[in-house]
Amino acid sequence: MSSTYGKKLKITVFGQSHSPAIGVLMEGLPTGFEIDMEELSAFMARRAPGKDPTSTPRREADSPEFISGLVDNTTCGAPVTAIIRNTNTRSSDYDNLRDCPRPGHADFTANVKYGGHQDVAGGGHFSGRLTAPICIAGGTALQILESMGIKIGAHIVRIGKEAGACYGCGDVCADDLKNLDTFPVRTQDEEERFRREIMSAKADGDSVGGMIECAILGLPAGLGDPMFEGMENRIAGIVFGIPAVKGVEFGRGMDVASIRGSENNDPFTVKDKKIVTATNNAGGILGGITNGMPLIFRAAIKPTPSIDKEQDSVSLSEMEPKKLIIHGRHDPCIVPRAVPVMEAAAAISVLDAILSK
Amino acid sequence: MSSTYGKKLKITVFGQSHSPAIGVLMEGLPTGFEIDMEELSAFMARRAPGKDPTSTPRREADSPEFISGLVDNTTCGAPVTAIIRNTNTRSSDYDNLRDCPRPGHADFTANVKYGGHQDVAGGGHFSGRLTAPICIAGGTALQILESMGIKIGAHIVRIGKEAGACYGCGDVCADDLKNLDTFPVRTQDEEERFRREIMSAKADGDSVGGMIECAILGLPAGLGDPMFEGMENRIAGIVFGIPAVKGVEFGRGMDVASIRGSENNDPFTVKDKKIVTATNNAGGILGGITNGMPLIFRAAIKPTPSIDKEQDSVSLSEMEPKKLIIHGRHDPCIVPRAVPVMEAAAAISVLDAILSK
Amino acid sequence: MSSTYGKKLKITVFGQSHSPAIGVLMEGLPTGFEIDMEELSAFMARRAPGKDPTSTPRREADSPEFISGLVDNTTCGAPVTAIIRNTNTRSSDYDNLRDCPRPGHADFTANVKYGGHQDVAGGGHFSGRLTAPICIAGGTALQILESMGIKIGAHIVRIGKEAGACYGCGDVCADDLKNLDTFPVRTQDEEERFRREIMSAKADGDSVGGMIECAILGLPAGLGDPMFEGMENRIAGIVFGIPAVKGVEFGRGMDVASIRGSENNDPFTVKDKKIVTATNNAGGILGGITNGMPLIFRAAIKPTPSIDKEQDSVSLSEMEPKKLIIHGRHDPCIVPRAVPVMEAAAAISVLDAILSK
Amino acid sequence: MSSTYGKKLKITVFGQSHSPAIGVLMEGLPTGFEIDMEELSAFMARRAPGKDPTSTPRREADSPEFISGLVDNTTCGAPVTAIIRNTNTRSSDYDNLRDCPRPGHADFTANVKYGGHQDVAGGGHFSGRLTAPICIAGGTALQILESMGIKIGAHIVRIGKEAGACYGCGDVCADDLKNLDTFPVRTQDEEERFRREIMSAKADGDSVGGMIECAILGLPAGLGDPMFEGMENRIAGIVFGIPAVKGVEFGRGMDVASIRGSENNDPFTVKDKKIVTATNNAGGILGGITNGMPLIFRAAIKPTPSIDKEQDSVSLSEMEPKKLIIHGRHDPCIVPRAVPVMEAAAAISVLDAILSK
Repeated sequence: MSSTYGKKLKITVFGQSHSPAIGVLMEGLPTGFEIDMEELSAFMARRAPGKDPTSTPRREADSPEFISGLVDNTTCGAPVTAIIRNTNTRSSDYDNLRDCPRPGHADFTANVKYGGHQDVAGGGHFSGRLTAPICIAGGTALQILESMGIKIGAHIVRIGKEAGACYGCGDVCADDLKNLDTFPVRTQDEEERFRREIMSAKADGDSVGGMIECAILGLPAGLGDPMFEGMENRIAGIVFGIPAVKGVEFGRGMDVASIRGSENNDPFTVKDKKIVTATNNAGGILGGITNGMPLIFRAAIKPTPSIDKEQDSVSLSEMEPKKLIIHGRHDPCIVPRAVPVMEAAAAISVLDAILSK
Repeated sequence: MSSTYGKKLKITVFGQSHSPAIGVLMEGLPTGFEIDMEELSAFMARRAPGKDPTSTPRREADSPEFISGLVDNTTCGAPVTAIIRNTNTRSSDYDNLRDCPRPGHADFTANVKYGGHQDVAGGGHFSGRLTAPICIAGGTALQILESMGIKIGAHIVRIGKEAGACYGCGDVCADDLKNLDTFPVRTQDEEERFRREIMSAKADGDSVGGMIECAILGLPAGLGDPMFEGMENRIAGIVFGIPAVKGVEFGRGMDVASIRGSENNDPFTVKDKKIVTATNNAGGILGGITNGMPLIFRAAIKPTPSIDKEQDSVSLSEMEPKKLIIHGRHDPCIVPRAVPVMEAAAAISVLDAILSK
Repeated sequence: MSSTYGKKLKITVFGQSHSPAIGVLMEGLPTGFEIDMEELSAFMARRAPGKDPTSTPRREADSPEFISGLVDNTTCGAPVTAIIRNTNTRSSDYDNLRDCPRPGHADFTANVKYGGHQDVAGGGHFSGRLTAPICIAGGTALQILESMGIKIGAHIVRIGKEAGACYGCGDVCADDLKNLDTFPVRTQDEEERFRREIMSAKADGDSVGGMIECAILGLPAGLGDPMFEGMENRIAGIVFGIPAVKGVEFGRGMDVASIRGSENNDPFTVKDKKIVTATNNAGGILGGITNGMPLIFRAAIKPTPSIDKEQDSVSLSEMEPKKLIIHGRHDPCIVPRAVPVMEAAAAISVLDAILSK
Repeated sequence: MSSTYGKKLKITVFGQSHSPAIGVLMEGLPTGFEIDMEELSAFMARRAPGKDPTSTPRREADSPEFISGLVDNTTCGAPVTAIIRNTNTRSSDYDNLRDCPRPGHADFTANVKYGGHQDVAGGGHFSGRLTAPICIAGGTALQILESMGIKIGAHIVRIGKEAGACYGCGDVCADDLKNLDTFPVRTQDEEERFRREIMSAKADGDSVGGMIECAILGLPAGLGDPMFEGMENRIAGIVFGIPAVKGVEFGRGMDVASIRGSENNDPFTVKDKKIVTATNNAGGILGGITNGMPLIFRAAIKPTPSIDKEQDSVSLSEMEPKKLIIHGRHDPCIVPRAVPVMEAAAAISVLDAILSK
């Protein structure tokens, strides 16, 4: 159950960093939708590594092969399965990790949960590589949402000490979601400051975290449910499945704790014969249900745990402290590559909510 | 599906603010567990209103009646159902809300979703009153967890402008969870500052938000799953079901976006023949799975939307702006009453994770 | 999970034979539907005992109280809960059963599963009394289906040695579903023969089984799914939840094993500009999906295990053979009372399939 | 959801008869179990066609490739995915079926459900070929059950007019489950009579149905749940997912409708310090829960709808009657090949029940 998300649109992510293949199984996609494979590849390319000095040099050919559910690239009603072959051979970089878990990684917890049977190589099923299948499903969902007039765009709002501008509770329009597909920021200045922060961490053999904001435009009012299937629950339920996410907030977010009702309540008004709110502190969600305003959320991404510094760990076999040095290639910051993953996750969650209506 | 939570322990909350009764149905509770009804009532009393000048004067008799699933207060394996009769008669306080939705409330979104058929009185199924059934289930779960040596305690860490101390990533022990059952703060000074903030909002006919931190002690390592059923996903999935929660973070939380890997990674070490981490930035969770350290999370609660001020709303029938004044009794701040609800939600989520193992 | 059925329309049955109440929780009912309470009571009355010499003399007042989910008897979108108070006090008829399980009953298996904590009185959650909540949910579903032009009717096709006529693969029209609400058979002759069979079993202090056939008319083509959510899987999934059902078959049923493809294939033809089949061996289902013909299924009901004869059982405490005589009041044949339950189960399953579409 | 089965052990079958691949995804398998690939291939071979004059000449290489979830053939806790490449190229045998549905097949219902987008070639997702992935999952489950001392064996009890002996409610021991892996019958005489029935249907260009009985030995008492997750519900829920199954019965089965309680009740007794029943009319299930006796069920399989005779169908485009002649290769009887599929389905269902305990 653990790697499945969704009620009406159900996706299951499978594979390990070094298994023969990784992939995703999708049930409940609308029938008769033709997937634009070029557009999907372009979307996949946004998370692919090795394009940029800020990411890992490891190169992956991330072109998905659809092995079921399509006829002439069109959904036929049967479960859709797409896989990506893992070309990297099982490396020996990771052998020492079976006994000496990496701080900040799932090595220790997976070892306890699976009694030592977990796939250690490359982090196994916990590897960030598994966000590629999420992007196959999400990229497909984005195309379907696009056909419904729904747009999703995410951008970086913080890297370490450097903060950028948030849509926050303010206005956001479709234009704001343009040109996010390069280094996903909104201004040249932000890009320079964020890159500088990443490169300086890299220079120190360290890593750095960041925050991503995602906006969903064109949603109808009335999506989601009360209680445990509200849009916040649904979106948090998938976003916390993206490795390294440690916090999720909607609209005004954590800041609502510091303000008063008279500041936080979004006044209703009528605009173009449509009921809207003058502000959007609610991030487009009231009582778990969309109100037709842009749905805004932010996720905090922790710094990559793999760093080029000696760290304190333990030997599980000897049950005593042990120094650890991690070999292999690492991203000094995964935030830029996580941006399309955030859009993918949002798309899957929103499409599921629409189909569950 | 919307009002059901859990996989192995499944709870469904039912009722509306003014329906004949509210209640909860629980499936999957361990068989043969005797519920201490006095302890449960004492726990329920912590969220009951009217005890304190900071809460609404509305009085409720919140003693649950168990109508199924027990024999001599002991679970017999059949679904457990408990109800609370609504003594308040259907009031006319809310008639105007059908046409004129309250800013910050679910009136508008519910109206769209249910096509005008929603129960308007008292907020219907969206009412904070529905947190009482969550406390019945959670209070029961807390007793079961207690019998396993697991302790849960929540406290207020912020009210409006006033901030208190967090466990954050630091140490927390069982003693810290004591005496949280009065006004749930950790110091006399915090209590005074928080009360002052609430009373000043009340004096202004306004309301104020806050933040609650919850700690879970005694969890074994290895709970939870990768991907979409990690402990973060599970806990966020229920906590966002508590009305007014707009953000959830774990361990170091949103702050991880600002720091480096060398700061954020929790070094492993050995203590009393047990593997622990020297710090707890991870909040007890790595890769979605518990590592045996205290599980720490915080939730931001927005200020109660019902305030004694004229607000801008609209007339749904006339589709034009309309001024709104809300009648009835309101909490200037629901944060203190939400603290036991947070513990209840955490208990349900954790017990489900344990039973799903 | 055990007592919950359905995907989009989810019903959970709760209560024990002697718990304070029994009832049902329904999630996913269409919003804005007004339940005709008189019609529902009339439907409930069909399964109520004590009306007829062929059933148990135990009298029950089976009028449901709806405690949530309705406003003026109309669904408001919140979970709908209805309960029936158990007026019978906890009887001592059953004390000996804790140690000495009744052959053919769940006493022994429940004792093993629940480690002796099961509710023994009246069969607890396994009691036929729990079919009353199924009828509350099913009676509601029947009204909704009726509003869609879908009719459901069941009738007895066998009692012991006496067999009646089946719709089988032949034609069935709405008229055939009329007047089934008394003793649910289709001919005076059948009624006499079936009654005679029941009364002769009763005279011998014995019980007798039977078979019920159910027809669903007016279904659109295209309902259901391939593989594990076909209409056969869905219907069998709820019908086997009715106590005493040991076999379920569709259309030509078990008989298909004995014939050839040329006999079994239903030829397609066109009638009134609609595609129909000349015969209906498929019982309205091809590949798990409805084809627009009447959906026909039959369920075999075993004879009531409670009989007025000394039987061979064991003492669980002494682990040795022991003679058992069962006290209390029993139905010599539950088949007539099970007929409306079969219609209720079919209605729940079909409505769920429609809403899941 | 449609192609997914199970609660704790969840399997999803994907692929179409002519898609690039077919396969199965398994979540919830016990971690650390090493799959014996040779034993699995041997099991798969039992359903492979072309070995015997009674089956289709189409040859398939049904050796599964595991692309995720294993390390050195041992489950590592991640979702397990296995695929089989479809070597047959998309054939044109089926083009006419898009407009002219085959009687007894899902062509028409799939066309309605999927609006003409279904994969027509080879029956698409409805093809009997999809039972191969069920055998991958079931063959794996059988190995796990074997390691728990649980044995499963199925055999043919009827082909057309020829009936064989049933375990029925009588005794069955592990020896009875031996040598079922050739032509799965229990006597030479049965084999001859069944083969004769099949070959005579084949000679007539026709097909014939049959019945399979399955026995599960070594089950502990206490498996399964009341109401809608009883063992009957669980097993019927997967067995009706096997194409062509139109009826499922347990123990004495449909016959219980004809007998009295005194005949049907299985007397309890003590044997080797274990509580057993003298007879097994219940087929090992009371109140949905196993009682420790052999679990016995039978499924009726309809004759293959594809026959070499002209049949009455319709033209969907012209909405008028049309004669149909089916080209391609067909099984005159799929019952022999369905026997291992029945064992596979039973194994998946039982292992899920055990893991859900």
